[in-house]
Amino acid sequence: MDLQAPSVTITALPGIPFIRPGDDLAALILEATHRIGVSLQTGDALVVTSKIVSKAEGRYFDLKQVEPGAEAQRLAAETRKDPRIVELVLQETRKISRIAPGVLVVQHRLGFVSANAGIDQSNVDGSDDTVLLLPADPDVSAARLRDQLRERTGADVGIVISDSHGRPFRMGNIGVAIGVAGMPAVLDLRGRPDLFGRELKISIQGYGDLVASAANLLTGEADEGRPVVMVRGLQFPPLVGRGTDLNRAPEHDLYR
Amino acid sequence: MDLQAPSVTITALPGIPFIRPGDDLAALILEATHRIGVSLQTGDALVVTSKIVSKAEGRYFDLKQVEPGAEAQRLAAETRKDPRIVELVLQETRKISRIAPGVLVVQHRLGFVSANAGIDQSNVDGSDDTVLLLPADPDVSAARLRDQLRERTGADVGIVISDSHGRPFRMGNIGVAIGVAGMPAVLDLRGRPDLFGRELKISIQGYGDLVASAANLLTGEADEGRPVVMVRGLQFPPLVGRGTDLNRAPEHDLYR
Repeated sequence: MDLQAPSVTITALPGIPFIRPGDDLAALILEATHRIGVSLQTGDALVVTSKIVSKAEGRYFDLKQVEPGAEAQRLAAETRKDPRIVELVLQETRKISRIAPGVLVVQHRLGFVSANAGIDQSNVDGSDDTVLLLPADPDVSAARLRDQLRERTGADVGIVISDSHGRPFRMGNIGVAIGVAGMPAVLDLRGRPDLFGRELKISIQGYGDLVASAANLLTGEADEGRPVVMVRGLQFPPLVGRGTDLNRAPEHDLYR
Repeated sequence: MDLQAPSVTITALPGIPFIRPGDDLAALILEATHRIGVSLQTGDALVVTSKIVSKAEGRYFDLKQVEPGAEAQRLAAETRKDPRIVELVLQETRKISRIAPGVLVVQHRLGFVSANAGIDQSNVDGSDDTVLLLPADPDVSAARLRDQLRERTGADVGIVISDSHGRPFRMGNIGVAIGVAGMPAVLDLRGRPDLFGRELKISIQGYGDLVASAANLLTGEADEGRPVVMVRGLQFPPLVGRGTDLNRAPEHDLYR
Protein backbone atom coordinates (compact mmCIF):
# COMPACT_ATOMS: atom_id res chain seq x y z
CA MET A 1 0.00 0.00 0.00
CA ASP A 2 1.37 3.39 -1.01
CA LEU A 3 1.18 5.60 2.06
CA GLN A 4 2.66 8.68 0.48
CA ALA A 5 0.35 11.59 -0.24
CA PRO A 6 1.65 13.16 -3.43
CA SER A 7 0.58 16.73 -3.67
CA VAL A 8 0.56 19.42 -6.34
CA THR A 9 0.21 23.09 -5.51
CA ILE A 10 -1.09 25.59 -8.04
CA THR A 11 -0.44 29.25 -7.27
CA ALA A 12 -1.45 32.30 -9.27
CA LEU A 13 1.45 34.75 -9.24
CA PRO A 14 0.26 38.11 -7.99
CA GLY A 15 0.82 41.54 -9.41
CA ILE A 16 1.67 40.71 -13.01
CA PRO A 17 1.08 44.11 -14.61
CA PHE A 18 -0.73 44.82 -17.85
CA ILE A 19 1.68 43.55 -20.53
CA ARG A 20 2.91 45.77 -23.38
CA PRO A 21 4.85 44.91 -26.53
CA GLY A 22 8.50 44.23 -25.71
CA ASP A 23 7.90 43.54 -22.03
CA ASP A 24 10.30 41.06 -20.45
CA LEU A 25 7.95 38.31 -19.24
CA ALA A 26 10.74 36.39 -17.51
CA ALA A 27 11.63 39.43 -15.42
CA LEU A 28 7.99 40.15 -14.54
CA ILE A 29 7.42 36.51 -13.57
CA LEU A 30 10.50 36.48 -11.33
CA GLU A 31 9.39 39.72 -9.66
CA ALA A 32 6.03 38.12 -8.98
CA THR A 33 7.58 34.99 -7.47
CA HIS A 34 9.78 37.13 -5.20
CA ARG A 35 6.70 39.08 -4.16
CA ILE A 36 5.36 35.93 -2.51
CA GLY A 37 8.73 34.71 -1.29
CA VAL A 38 9.02 31.85 -3.76
CA SER A 39 12.09 30.78 -5.74
CA LEU A 40 11.57 28.77 -8.90
CA GLN A 41 12.91 25.23 -8.64
CA THR A 42 13.78 22.62 -11.22
CA GLY A 43 10.61 20.57 -11.73
CA ASP A 44 8.23 23.48 -11.28
CA ALA A 45 5.98 24.29 -14.20
CA LEU A 46 4.73 27.73 -15.18
CA VAL A 47 1.50 28.13 -17.10
CA VAL A 48 1.39 31.42 -18.97
CA THR A 49 -1.71 32.49 -20.88
CA SER A 50 -1.16 32.92 -24.59
CA LYS A 51 -2.76 36.34 -24.26
CA ILE A 52 0.12 37.91 -22.36
CA VAL A 53 2.67 36.17 -24.58
CA SER A 54 0.92 37.67 -27.61
CA LYS A 55 0.90 41.09 -25.98
CA ALA A 56 4.60 40.92 -25.13
CA GLU A 57 5.27 39.86 -28.71
CA GLY A 58 3.17 42.74 -30.04
CA ARG A 59 0.74 40.53 -31.96
CA TYR A 60 -1.80 43.34 -32.26
CA PHE A 61 -3.60 44.06 -35.48
CA ASP A 62 -5.56 47.18 -36.35
CA LEU A 63 -8.75 46.13 -38.10
CA LYS A 64 -8.77 49.46 -39.98
CA GLN A 65 -5.71 48.20 -41.89
CA VAL A 66 -7.38 44.92 -42.89
CA GLU A 67 -8.93 44.58 -46.37
CA PRO A 68 -11.32 41.61 -46.40
CA GLY A 69 -11.06 39.45 -49.50
CA ALA A 70 -13.94 37.76 -51.30
CA GLU A 71 -13.86 34.56 -49.20
CA ALA A 72 -13.78 36.57 -45.97
CA GLN A 73 -16.78 38.60 -47.10
CA ARG A 74 -18.73 35.48 -48.02
CA LEU A 75 -17.88 33.74 -44.70
CA ALA A 76 -18.61 36.93 -42.74
CA ALA A 77 -22.11 37.04 -44.23
CA GLU A 78 -22.67 33.38 -43.41
CA THR A 79 -21.33 33.62 -39.85
CA ARG A 80 -22.53 37.21 -39.19
CA LYS A 81 -19.05 38.27 -38.14
CA ASP A 82 -16.91 41.32 -38.89
CA PRO A 83 -15.42 40.63 -42.38
CA ARG A 84 -12.11 42.13 -41.25
CA ILE A 85 -11.86 39.67 -38.37
CA VAL A 86 -12.81 36.83 -40.70
CA GLU A 87 -10.01 37.94 -43.05
CA LEU A 88 -7.50 37.74 -40.19
CA VAL A 89 -8.92 34.37 -39.13
CA LEU A 90 -8.40 33.06 -42.66
CA GLN A 91 -4.81 34.30 -42.67
CA GLU A 92 -4.23 32.24 -39.51
CA THR A 93 -6.08 29.18 -40.84
CA ARG A 94 -4.91 25.96 -42.41
CA LYS A 95 -8.41 24.58 -43.03
CA ILE A 96 -11.98 25.58 -42.22
CA SER A 97 -13.63 22.99 -39.99
CA ARG A 98 -17.22 24.11 -39.34
CA ILE A 99 -19.32 27.17 -40.21
CA ALA A 100 -22.62 28.20 -38.67
CA PRO A 101 -24.28 31.50 -37.72
CA GLY A 102 -21.96 33.06 -35.14
CA VAL A 103 -19.51 30.17 -35.39
CA LEU A 104 -16.31 29.81 -37.37
CA VAL A 105 -14.24 26.83 -36.28
CA VAL A 106 -10.92 26.35 -38.05
CA GLN A 107 -7.77 24.35 -37.92
CA HIS A 108 -5.22 26.99 -36.99
CA ARG A 109 -1.93 27.15 -38.91
CA LEU A 110 -0.36 25.84 -35.66
CA GLY A 111 -2.42 22.67 -36.03
CA PHE A 112 -5.10 22.82 -33.33
CA VAL A 113 -8.82 23.29 -33.97
CA SER A 114 -10.48 26.27 -32.34
CA ALA A 115 -13.07 29.00 -32.79
CA ASN A 116 -11.97 32.09 -34.74
CA ALA A 117 -8.33 30.94 -34.84
CA GLY A 118 -7.95 32.25 -31.31
CA ILE A 119 -8.56 35.84 -32.39
CA ASP A 120 -10.75 37.92 -30.14
CA GLN A 121 -11.11 41.36 -28.72
CA SER A 122 -11.43 40.61 -25.04
CA ASN A 123 -8.82 42.12 -22.72
CA VAL A 124 -7.18 43.98 -25.58
CA ASP A 125 -6.30 47.58 -24.96
CA GLY A 126 -6.97 50.37 -27.39
CA SER A 127 -10.02 50.89 -29.54
CA ASP A 128 -12.61 48.38 -30.59
CA ASP A 129 -10.62 48.05 -33.82
CA THR A 130 -7.64 46.38 -32.13
CA VAL A 131 -7.43 42.61 -32.02
CA LEU A 132 -4.80 40.26 -30.71
CA LEU A 133 -3.55 37.21 -32.59
CA LEU A 134 -2.01 34.16 -30.97
CA PRO A 135 1.79 34.06 -30.62
CA ALA A 136 3.59 33.39 -33.90
CA ASP A 137 5.03 30.12 -32.56
CA PRO A 138 4.05 29.28 -28.97
CA ASP A 139 6.56 26.41 -28.73
CA VAL A 140 9.34 28.88 -29.54
CA SER A 141 7.91 31.38 -27.05
CA ALA A 142 7.82 28.67 -24.38
CA ALA A 143 11.40 27.56 -25.06
CA ARG A 144 12.64 31.17 -24.99
CA LEU A 145 10.95 31.87 -21.67
CA ARG A 146 12.36 28.66 -20.22
CA ASP A 147 15.88 29.56 -21.34
CA GLN A 148 15.59 33.08 -19.88
CA LEU A 149 14.37 31.74 -16.55
CA ARG A 150 17.17 29.16 -16.41
CA GLU A 151 19.79 31.82 -17.16
CA ARG A 152 18.50 34.01 -14.36
CA THR A 153 17.69 31.39 -11.72
CA GLY A 154 19.50 28.17 -12.61
CA ALA A 155 16.16 26.34 -12.39
CA ASP A 156 14.91 24.11 -15.20
CA VAL A 157 11.19 24.77 -15.22
CA GLY A 158 8.54 23.38 -17.53
CA ILE A 159 6.56 25.95 -19.49
CA VAL A 160 3.02 25.73 -20.84
CA ILE A 161 1.59 28.50 -23.00
CA SER A 162 -2.13 28.04 -22.44
CA ASP A 163 -5.28 28.88 -24.28
CA SER A 164 -8.92 28.19 -23.51
CA HIS A 165 -10.82 26.07 -26.04
CA GLY A 166 -14.34 24.85 -26.50
CA ARG A 167 -14.73 21.28 -27.71
CA PRO A 168 -17.18 18.86 -29.27
CA PHE A 169 -19.53 16.82 -27.08
CA ARG A 170 -18.95 18.77 -23.88
CA MET A 171 -20.03 22.11 -22.47
CA GLY A 172 -17.57 24.74 -21.37
CA ASN A 173 -14.01 25.64 -22.19
CA ILE A 174 -11.00 23.85 -20.81
CA GLY A 175 -7.36 24.86 -20.69
CA VAL A 176 -5.15 23.59 -23.50
CA ALA A 177 -1.40 23.78 -24.02
CA ILE A 178 -0.56 25.42 -27.34
CA GLY A 179 3.12 25.82 -26.45
CA VAL A 180 5.25 23.53 -24.29
CA ALA A 181 8.92 23.50 -23.28
CA GLY A 182 10.94 21.45 -20.83
CA MET A 183 8.19 19.02 -19.92
CA PRO A 184 6.02 16.37 -21.56
CA ALA A 185 3.08 17.48 -23.71
CA VAL A 186 1.65 13.99 -24.17
CA LEU A 187 2.45 11.22 -21.71
CA ASP A 188 2.33 7.73 -23.12
CA LEU A 189 1.49 5.23 -20.41
CA ARG A 190 0.85 2.33 -22.79
CA GLY A 191 2.40 -0.87 -21.64
CA ARG A 192 2.52 0.05 -17.97
CA PRO A 193 0.79 -2.69 -16.04
CA ASP A 194 -2.44 -2.09 -14.21
CA LEU A 195 -2.87 -3.18 -10.58
CA PHE A 196 -3.28 -6.82 -11.63
CA GLY A 197 -0.52 -6.88 -14.19
CA ARG A 198 -2.82 -6.88 -17.21
CA GLU A 199 -1.30 -4.59 -19.80
CA LEU A 200 -3.06 -1.29 -20.36
CA LYS A 201 -3.85 -1.11 -24.03
CA ILE A 202 -4.46 2.58 -24.50
CA SER A 203 -3.51 5.11 -21.92
CA ILE A 204 -2.13 8.33 -23.22
CA GLN A 205 -2.52 11.43 -21.10
CA GLY A 206 -2.92 14.84 -22.68
CA TYR A 207 -0.50 15.99 -20.03
CA GLY A 208 -0.02 19.57 -21.22
CA ASP A 209 -3.77 20.05 -21.36
CA LEU A 210 -4.17 18.62 -17.86
CA VAL A 211 -1.64 21.15 -16.56
CA ALA A 212 -3.28 23.99 -18.52
CA SER A 213 -6.71 22.99 -17.21
CA ALA A 214 -5.48 22.84 -13.63
CA ALA A 215 -4.09 26.36 -14.03
CA ASN A 216 -7.34 27.50 -15.63
CA LEU A 217 -9.02 26.96 -12.25
CA LEU A 218 -7.10 30.03 -11.08
CA THR A 219 -6.63 32.14 -14.21
CA GLY A 220 -10.34 32.30 -14.93
CA GLU A 221 -11.41 33.95 -18.15
CA ALA A 222 -12.45 37.48 -17.32
CA ASP A 223 -11.06 40.23 -15.14
CA GLU A 224 -9.13 38.17 -12.62
CA GLY A 225 -5.82 39.40 -14.01
CA ARG A 226 -3.97 36.19 -13.15
CA PRO A 227 -2.12 35.30 -16.32
CA VAL A 228 0.72 33.26 -14.78
CA VAL A 229 0.30 30.21 -12.59
CA MET A 230 3.05 28.22 -10.93
CA VAL A 231 2.54 24.47 -10.55
CA ARG A 232 4.76 22.73 -8.03
CA GLY A 233 5.00 19.00 -7.29
CA LEU A 234 4.12 17.52 -10.67
CA GLN A 235 7.00 15.01 -10.80
CA PHE A 236 6.77 14.67 -14.56
CA PRO A 237 9.29 12.35 -16.23
CA PRO A 238 12.26 13.89 -18.05
CA LEU A 239 10.53 13.95 -21.43
CA VAL A 240 10.45 17.06 -23.51
CA GLY A 241 7.40 17.67 -25.65
CA ARG A 242 5.97 20.41 -27.80
CA GLY A 243 2.54 21.94 -27.95
CA THR A 244 2.13 20.52 -31.43
CA ASP A 245 2.38 16.97 -29.98
CA LEU A 246 -1.14 17.53 -28.67
CA ASN A 247 -2.63 17.99 -32.14
CA ARG A 248 -4.26 14.82 -33.40
CA ALA A 249 -3.38 14.21 -37.04
CA PRO A 250 -6.51 14.71 -39.20
CA GLU A 251 -6.08 11.22 -40.70
CA HIS A 252 -6.35 9.76 -37.18
CA ASP A 253 -9.40 11.80 -36.26
CA LEU A 254 -12.90 10.43 -36.77
CA TYR A 255 -14.47 13.85 -36.24
CA ARG A 256 -13.00 16.16 -38.91
CA MET B 1 -3.34 45.41 -8.72
CA ASP B 2 -4.34 42.18 -7.04
CA LEU B 3 -1.52 41.21 -4.68
CA GLN B 4 -3.12 38.06 -3.37
CA ALA B 5 -1.69 34.74 -4.48
CA PRO B 6 -4.66 32.39 -4.68
CA SER B 7 -3.57 28.81 -4.37
CA VAL B 8 -5.11 25.40 -4.92
CA THR B 9 -3.62 22.24 -3.44
CA ILE B 10 -4.31 18.83 -4.92
CA THR B 11 -3.49 15.85 -2.73
CA ALA B 12 -3.85 12.17 -3.52
CA LEU B 13 -5.24 10.43 -0.44
CA PRO B 14 -2.95 7.56 0.53
CA GLY B 15 -3.79 4.01 1.39
CA ILE B 16 -7.21 3.65 -0.23
CA PRO B 17 -7.47 -0.14 -0.38
CA PHE B 18 -8.69 -2.23 -3.25
CA ILE B 19 -12.44 -1.58 -3.35
CA ARG B 20 -14.99 -4.41 -3.18
CA PRO B 21 -18.76 -4.40 -3.72
CA GLY B 22 -20.53 -2.86 -0.75
CA ASP B 23 -17.47 -1.02 0.57
CA ASP B 24 -18.20 2.23 2.40
CA LEU B 25 -16.29 4.76 0.31
CA ALA B 26 -17.05 7.63 2.69
CA ALA B 27 -15.47 5.72 5.58
CA LEU B 28 -12.41 4.73 3.54
CA ILE B 29 -11.95 8.33 2.37
CA LEU B 30 -12.19 9.67 5.92
CA GLU B 31 -9.66 7.09 7.13
CA ALA B 32 -7.31 8.21 4.37
CA THR B 33 -7.66 11.89 5.29
CA HIS B 34 -6.97 11.10 8.94
CA ARG B 35 -3.91 9.13 7.88
CA ILE B 36 -2.34 12.38 6.64
CA GLY B 37 -3.75 14.53 9.43
CA VAL B 38 -6.28 16.34 7.30
CA SER B 39 -9.90 17.15 8.16
CA LEU B 40 -12.32 17.80 5.33
CA GLN B 41 -13.58 21.38 5.24
CA THR B 42 -16.53 23.01 3.58
CA GLY B 43 -15.30 24.19 0.19
CA ASP B 44 -12.97 21.24 -0.37
CA ALA B 45 -13.62 19.08 -3.37
CA LEU B 46 -13.01 15.36 -3.66
CA VAL B 47 -12.38 13.77 -7.00
CA VAL B 48 -13.17 10.06 -6.97
CA THR B 49 -12.48 7.87 -9.99
CA SER B 50 -15.58 6.27 -11.45
CA LYS B 51 -13.73 2.97 -11.28
CA ILE B 52 -13.83 2.69 -7.51
CA VAL B 53 -17.41 3.95 -7.39
CA SER B 54 -18.35 1.20 -9.85
CA LYS B 55 -16.52 -1.37 -7.77
CA ALA B 56 -18.23 -0.28 -4.55
CA GLU B 57 -21.55 -0.45 -6.38
CA GLY B 58 -20.74 -3.92 -7.69
CA ARG B 59 -21.06 -3.00 -11.37
CA TYR B 60 -19.21 -6.13 -12.46
CA PHE B 61 -20.38 -8.23 -15.34
CA ASP B 62 -19.27 -11.73 -16.20
CA LEU B 63 -18.79 -11.93 -19.95
CA LYS B 64 -19.60 -15.65 -19.82
CA GLN B 65 -23.18 -14.66 -18.99
CA VAL B 66 -23.50 -12.28 -21.96
CA GLU B 67 -25.24 -13.44 -25.14
CA PRO B 68 -24.26 -11.13 -28.01
CA GLY B 69 -27.16 -10.18 -30.29
CA ALA B 70 -27.03 -9.77 -34.04
CA GLU B 71 -26.06 -6.08 -33.97
CA ALA B 72 -23.30 -6.76 -31.42
CA GLN B 73 -21.92 -9.54 -33.64
CA ARG B 74 -21.95 -7.33 -36.71
CA LEU B 75 -20.25 -4.44 -34.86
CA ALA B 76 -17.75 -6.78 -33.22
CA ALA B 77 -16.67 -8.00 -36.64
CA GLU B 78 -16.33 -4.46 -37.90
CA THR B 79 -14.42 -3.19 -34.86
CA ARG B 80 -12.55 -6.46 -34.14
CA LYS B 81 -13.75 -6.50 -30.56
CA ASP B 82 -15.12 -9.20 -28.28
CA PRO B 83 -18.82 -9.53 -29.29
CA ARG B 84 -19.79 -9.94 -25.63
CA ILE B 85 -18.17 -6.63 -24.72
CA VAL B 86 -19.85 -4.99 -27.71
CA GLU B 87 -23.19 -6.37 -26.49
CA LEU B 88 -22.62 -4.74 -23.08
CA VAL B 89 -21.51 -1.50 -24.77
CA LEU B 90 -24.76 -1.46 -26.78
CA GLN B 91 -26.79 -1.99 -23.61
CA GLU B 92 -25.11 1.13 -22.16
CA THR B 93 -25.48 3.15 -25.37
CA ARG B 94 -27.97 5.78 -26.46
CA LYS B 95 -26.51 6.22 -29.95
CA ILE B 96 -23.49 4.97 -31.86
CA SER B 97 -21.20 7.84 -32.82
CA ARG B 98 -18.26 6.41 -34.82
CA ILE B 99 -17.09 2.95 -35.79
CA ALA B 100 -13.67 1.98 -37.09
CA PRO B 101 -11.33 -1.00 -36.69
CA GLY B 102 -10.55 -1.15 -32.96
CA VAL B 103 -12.77 1.84 -32.25
CA LEU B 104 -16.35 2.03 -31.03
CA VAL B 105 -17.34 5.52 -29.91
CA VAL B 106 -20.84 5.91 -28.52
CA GLN B 107 -23.06 8.35 -26.76
CA HIS B 108 -23.48 6.68 -23.39
CA ARG B 109 -26.97 6.42 -21.87
CA LEU B 110 -25.72 9.03 -19.37
CA GLY B 111 -25.25 11.49 -22.25
CA PHE B 112 -21.51 11.82 -22.76
CA VAL B 113 -19.58 10.53 -25.77
CA SER B 114 -16.77 8.07 -25.10
CA ALA B 115 -15.03 4.96 -26.35
CA ASN B 116 -16.66 1.61 -25.49
CA ALA B 117 -19.23 3.25 -23.18
CA GLY B 118 -16.53 3.36 -20.51
CA ILE B 119 -16.35 -0.43 -20.30
CA ASP B 120 -12.93 -1.93 -20.00
CA GLN B 121 -11.02 -4.65 -18.28
CA SER B 122 -8.14 -2.70 -16.76
CA ASN B 123 -7.75 -2.82 -12.99
CA VAL B 124 -10.64 -5.25 -12.67
CA ASP B 125 -10.11 -8.18 -10.41
CA GLY B 126 -11.03 -11.73 -11.23
CA SER B 127 -10.71 -13.50 -14.51
CA ASP B 128 -10.28 -12.02 -17.95
CA ASP B 129 -14.03 -12.50 -18.37
CA THR B 130 -14.90 -9.88 -15.76
CA VAL B 131 -15.62 -6.34 -16.87
CA LEU B 132 -16.68 -3.26 -14.97
CA LEU B 133 -19.41 -0.89 -16.13
CA LEU B 134 -19.68 2.76 -15.13
CA PRO B 135 -21.82 3.62 -12.10
CA ALA B 136 -25.55 3.39 -12.75
CA ASP B 137 -26.00 7.12 -12.07
CA PRO B 138 -22.80 8.98 -11.14
CA ASP B 139 -24.69 12.14 -10.11
CA VAL B 140 -26.63 10.06 -7.58
CA SER B 141 -23.39 8.39 -6.44
CA ALA B 142 -21.78 11.81 -5.99
CA ALA B 143 -24.73 13.20 -4.02
CA ARG B 144 -24.83 10.13 -1.79
CA LEU B 145 -21.12 10.35 -1.01
CA ARG B 146 -21.46 14.06 -0.28
CA ASP B 147 -24.36 13.43 2.10
CA GLN B 148 -22.47 10.68 3.91
CA LEU B 149 -19.39 12.87 4.33
CA ARG B 150 -21.49 15.76 5.63
CA GLU B 151 -23.25 13.52 8.14
CA ARG B 152 -19.94 12.26 9.47
CA THR B 153 -17.86 15.45 9.38
CA GLY B 154 -20.24 18.43 9.11
CA ALA B 155 -18.28 19.61 6.07
CA ASP B 156 -20.02 20.45 2.80
CA VAL B 157 -17.60 19.19 0.19
CA GLY B 158 -17.93 19.20 -3.57
CA ILE B 159 -17.74 15.79 -5.25
CA VAL B 160 -16.59 14.92 -8.74
CA ILE B 161 -16.86 11.37 -10.04
CA SER B 162 -14.18 11.36 -12.71
CA ASP B 163 -13.46 9.40 -15.83
CA SER B 164 -10.72 9.67 -18.40
CA HIS B 165 -11.82 10.40 -21.98
CA GLY B 166 -10.18 10.76 -25.34
CA ARG B 167 -11.47 13.55 -27.54
CA PRO B 168 -11.56 14.80 -31.11
CA PHE B 169 -8.76 17.05 -32.40
CA ARG B 170 -6.35 16.47 -29.56
CA MET B 171 -4.03 13.70 -28.43
CA GLY B 172 -4.27 12.10 -25.04
CA ASN B 173 -6.96 11.60 -22.46
CA ILE B 174 -8.11 14.25 -20.04
CA GLY B 175 -10.13 14.00 -16.85
CA VAL B 176 -13.87 14.55 -17.15
CA ALA B 177 -16.57 14.85 -14.52
CA ILE B 178 -19.35 12.31 -15.13
CA GLY B 179 -20.90 12.89 -11.71
CA VAL B 180 -21.00 16.12 -9.72
CA ALA B 181 -22.51 17.14 -6.38
CA GLY B 182 -22.28 20.24 -4.22
CA MET B 183 -20.27 22.32 -6.67
CA PRO B 184 -20.62 23.80 -10.15
CA ALA B 185 -20.23 21.52 -13.16
CA VAL B 186 -20.29 24.32 -15.73
CA LEU B 187 -19.38 27.88 -14.75
CA ASP B 188 -21.00 30.57 -16.84
CA LEU B 189 -18.83 33.68 -16.87
CA ARG B 190 -20.75 35.39 -19.68
CA GLY B 191 -21.40 39.01 -19.00
CA ARG B 192 -18.53 39.49 -16.58
CA PRO B 193 -16.47 42.40 -17.82
CA ASP B 194 -12.94 41.96 -19.06
CA LEU B 195 -10.09 44.13 -17.78
CA PHE B 196 -11.28 47.06 -19.95
CA GLY B 197 -14.96 46.69 -19.28
CA ARG B 198 -15.84 45.23 -22.67
CA GLU B 199 -18.35 42.49 -22.14
CA LEU B 200 -17.09 38.96 -22.61
CA LYS B 201 -19.36 37.33 -25.14
CA ILE B 202 -18.71 33.68 -24.56
CA SER B 203 -16.88 32.41 -21.55
CA ILE B 204 -18.17 29.22 -20.08
CA GLN B 205 -15.78 27.04 -18.14
CA GLY B 206 -16.13 23.28 -18.10
CA TYR B 207 -15.44 23.57 -14.41
CA GLY B 208 -16.04 19.94 -13.42
CA ASP B 209 -13.72 18.79 -16.19
CA LEU B 210 -11.04 21.26 -15.08
CA VAL B 211 -11.20 19.83 -11.57
CA ALA B 212 -11.18 16.24 -12.87
CA SER B 213 -8.20 17.03 -15.12
CA ALA B 214 -6.28 18.64 -12.29
CA ALA B 215 -6.86 15.50 -10.20
CA ASN B 216 -5.84 13.32 -13.15
CA LEU B 217 -2.31 14.72 -12.77
CA LEU B 218 -2.11 12.64 -9.59
CA THR B 219 -4.42 9.69 -10.20
CA GLY B 220 -2.60 8.65 -13.35
CA GLU B 221 -4.06 5.82 -15.37
CA ALA B 222 -2.19 2.70 -14.48
CA ASP B 223 -0.95 1.17 -11.26
CA GLU B 224 -0.59 4.27 -9.15
CA GLY B 225 -3.52 3.22 -6.95
CA ARG B 226 -4.57 6.79 -6.19
CA PRO B 227 -8.29 6.81 -6.84
CA VAL B 228 -9.24 9.72 -4.54
CA VAL B 229 -7.83 13.23 -4.74
CA MET B 230 -8.63 16.13 -2.44
CA VAL B 231 -8.67 19.61 -3.94
CA ARG B 232 -8.45 22.49 -1.48
CA GLY B 233 -8.69 26.21 -2.21
CA LEU B 234 -10.97 26.25 -5.25
CA GLN B 235 -13.29 29.01 -4.01
CA PHE B 236 -16.07 27.95 -6.36
CA PRO B 237 -19.31 29.94 -6.16
CA PRO B 238 -22.29 28.39 -4.36
CA LEU B 239 -23.77 26.85 -7.48
CA VAL B 240 -24.78 23.25 -7.59
CA GLY B 241 -24.38 21.42 -10.87
CA ARG B 242 -24.66 17.90 -12.17
CA GLY B 243 -22.34 15.84 -14.32
CA THR B 244 -24.98 15.85 -17.04
CA ASP B 245 -24.64 19.67 -17.30
CA LEU B 246 -21.35 19.00 -19.07
CA ASN B 247 -23.00 17.10 -21.92
CA ARG B 248 -23.46 19.30 -24.97
CA ALA B 249 -26.89 18.74 -26.51
CA PRO B 250 -26.49 16.98 -29.88
CA GLU B 251 -28.49 19.75 -31.60
CA HIS B 252 -25.90 22.28 -30.40
CA ASP B 253 -22.95 20.19 -31.50
CA LEU B 254 -21.39 20.66 -34.93
CA TYR B 255 -19.42 17.43 -34.64
CA ARG B 256 -21.96 14.64 -34.16
